Amino acid sequence: MELIGDLPARPLDPAACFNQHGDPSDDGVSARSFRGPVAVVLPAGGCGERMGLSTPKQFCKLLDRPLISYTIHAFERIKWIEAVIVVVAEQHVELMKSIIQKYNHEKTQWCVGGLTRHRSIFNGLSVFVDDKFMECHLTKPKVVIIHDAVRPFVNEDILLKIATAANDHGCTEYDFEYGTECLHLVLSYCNTQAKLIEGPPTLWKVTYKQDLFAAESLIKETLSQNVCVITDVDQEALQLGHCLKKMLMTQHMDVEVISAEYGKKKLCIPHVSSQESYNIIIIGNTELQEKQEVIDVIANSSMTLLYPMVLILVYISLPESTPFSKKLDEPSAIRRLAKEAKHRNILVYGLLVNYTKDSEELNESLENMCFISKSLMKDRNSALTGQLLVV
Amino acid sequence: MELIGDLPARPLDPAACFNQHGDPSDDGVSARSFRGPVAVVLPAGGCGERMGLSTPKQFCKLLDRPLISYTIHAFERIKWIEAVIVVVAEQHVELMKSIIQKYNHEKTQWCVGGLTRHRSIFNGLSVFVDDKFMECHLTKPKVVIIHDAVRPFVNEDILLKIATAANDHGCTEYDFEYGTECLHLVLSYCNTQAKLIEGPPTLWKVTYKQDLFAAESLIKETLSQNVCVITDVDQEALQLGHCLKKMLMTQHMDVEVISAEYGKKKLCIPHVSSQESYNIIIIGNTELQEKQEVIDVIANSSMTLLYPMVLILVYISLPESTPFSKKLDEPSAIRRLAKEAKHRNILVYGLLVNYTKDSEELNESLENMCFISKSLMKDRNSALTGQLLVV
Repeated sequence: MELIGDLPARPLDPAACFNQHGDPSDDGVSARSFRGPVAVVLPAGGCGERMGLSTPKQFCKLLDRPLISYTIHAFERIKWIEAVIVVVAEQHVELMKSIIQKYNHEKTQWCVGGLTRHRSIFNGLSVFVDDKFMECHLTKPKVVIIHDAVRPFVNEDILLKIATAANDHGCTEYDFEYGTECLHLVLSYCNTQAKLIEGPPTLWKVTYKQDLFAAESLIKETLSQNVCVITDVDQEALQLGHCLKKMLMTQHMDVEVISAEYGKKKLCIPHVSSQESYNIIIIGNTELQEKQEVIDVIANSSMTLLYPMVLILVYISLPESTPFSKKLDEPSAIRRLAKEAKHRNILVYGLLVNYTKDSEELNESLENMCFISKSLMKDRNSALTGQLLVV
Repeated sequence: MELIGDLPARPLDPAACFNQHGDPSDDGVSARSFRGPVAVVLPAGGCGERMGLSTPKQFCKLLDRPLISYTIHAFERIKWIEAVIVVVAEQHVELMKSIIQKYNHEKTQWCVGGLTRHRSIFNGLSVFVDDKFMECHLTKPKVVIIHDAVRPFVNEDILLKIATAANDHGCTEYDFEYGTECLHLVLSYCNTQAKLIEGPPTLWKVTYKQDLFAAESLIKETLSQNVCVITDVDQEALQLGHCLKKMLMTQHMDVEVISAEYGKKKLCIPHVSSQESYNIIIIGNTELQEKQEVIDVIANSSMTLLYPMVLILVYISLPESTPFSKKLDEPSAIRRLAKEAKHRNILVYGLLVNYTKDSEELNESLENMCFISKSLMKDRNSALTGQLLVV
């Protein structure tokens, strides 16, 4: 990644200093800012011949969304970045337009690239002096970040570090020796300061098929780090929620448990959304109608636009003497519900827990419930939605 | 990877010219050979500080087996390689010994490394002049391949290519400029020819956490490329087997269908083993006893030593009027069977197909069966064994 342009000078809005996990940055870079708007150019004109795949790698899908959309989103979510320009080959313009529209990339525009990477970057930079750019009420940026479209894991920390280092150090001889091509060009031909910064390992470039596997696994791992558990208010559901929290926390997950009466579970969804959690576990034998309402609220929020949501419905099977067990939904009804939800990017799985008074048996059931839930959240396997799994 | 030593000269036993998929090599390297024994030294003394994990990367587990064992096996399976020496740090000797024993690495010995990579390689090479080495009736090798322990995806083709190229080209100035450290040392201090060969992308080094994800996905992909389907002899089972084959083949899988009477299915396992297939689908409502017998035969073969076997039991649910459906095993019996099989590295899943005369409904069921089966074979998810999935 290279940074071309102006340097940070005065304090930034603290809201922009939060990193991807929502924690305040504490490494000293947060108190800096840029003197003007920041924009990004993503050269994405490659044809992917090294992948051994027919689709260029920037358009390969991870969890059913093209790689380029992940890179765009990584920049769009940063408040102080005003515009993203994606440079694509002529034959991919329509595809790129559909991606921008489908995933609601509001800060993003596209332009057509040239025969070389540098020509493409030039075309990307040219957008900023275009009349159309002004028409969108965007200001000519003071800082432009040039970033490979196939490095999706960029975060705010590294961008701030780059800007800060450029401010503190200027250029050095070291960069001249070990810099990338782009850095050379900037230093040779532009009246601008530039510096090479070492990125984190996660900033690696998706080049081969194994990199796509790695990228998808990293995304899945990130998505499976936190979960909201919404329980019914009866004793068994509350107990199960409590135990599940304890067990999932030993697996290094962030778990929040909320209890809600019948009809009120859908009211918890805005909170889940604010937590950026893509996993919900509902515990309790309340009717299918309530679960359908929860699915409707999730689908009508913007939560499932970028990532598939996992929704696990935990049913409690009590000893037969208790009339409660009659309330269990039919497996075929869960399958129908899940089939429809999958079209809305919500992966629904059922989980039936045998609730016994035998504490050893119950404990084994609970451990299984934890193991299976964790695995469903991590794998996001769309082939298994609608199944009623038994623990 | 570097090759140190002698050069190929006369024709080799044709059996050694088959690549990993069992096809005859046709790239011209197959008709060459080595004048003496070939051995391998695997420096594996790293402490994995770049991974951000407590376990050094060569001991990290992929599908529950340490990475180093995959690299060892990649060499051991090549007939013309006689010995593998793994060089480990003092504190990992016991772990390494247990790995060699557990995975039955018969060609492999270990030695303790030194403070630097080169000292470790020296220690590895020293084993060949050790009395103990002679005691094992091993001949001092003519060729020694030095290979990073954390590059598990090495195949016979590249090794033969390296040897051939060394024979044809000798050394060049280019290698001096771009070679690795080891190559420099060999060229500077040894009276030996050496050459740098470009490896395939799959030969990449496992360095960061995302590389472990990628490696596991590649292994899973390779394991899910072929399957043996064993069907009952009744009409419905035969039809399902036929349809499944057709569908899985469109997913680029190699599928073999065998039909076998009750009690005879276990006799198919030696054939499955000879095909190096790690996936078996049994179609038919025959009793659990027969399935247990199949599991016993698999467990007593050496098939599950290196990779988990996937065994999918497909049950056929016929309209209620047919007494046949009464033969279905209890879900809890499948769970018990699967729990015991998991300890033997066999992942058992149940799949219940609703067999109807309505051709549209049946087709949807069959597509689902194909989708779920493919996914189970690809994911090898141990959390879901014993579940009876419904399609």
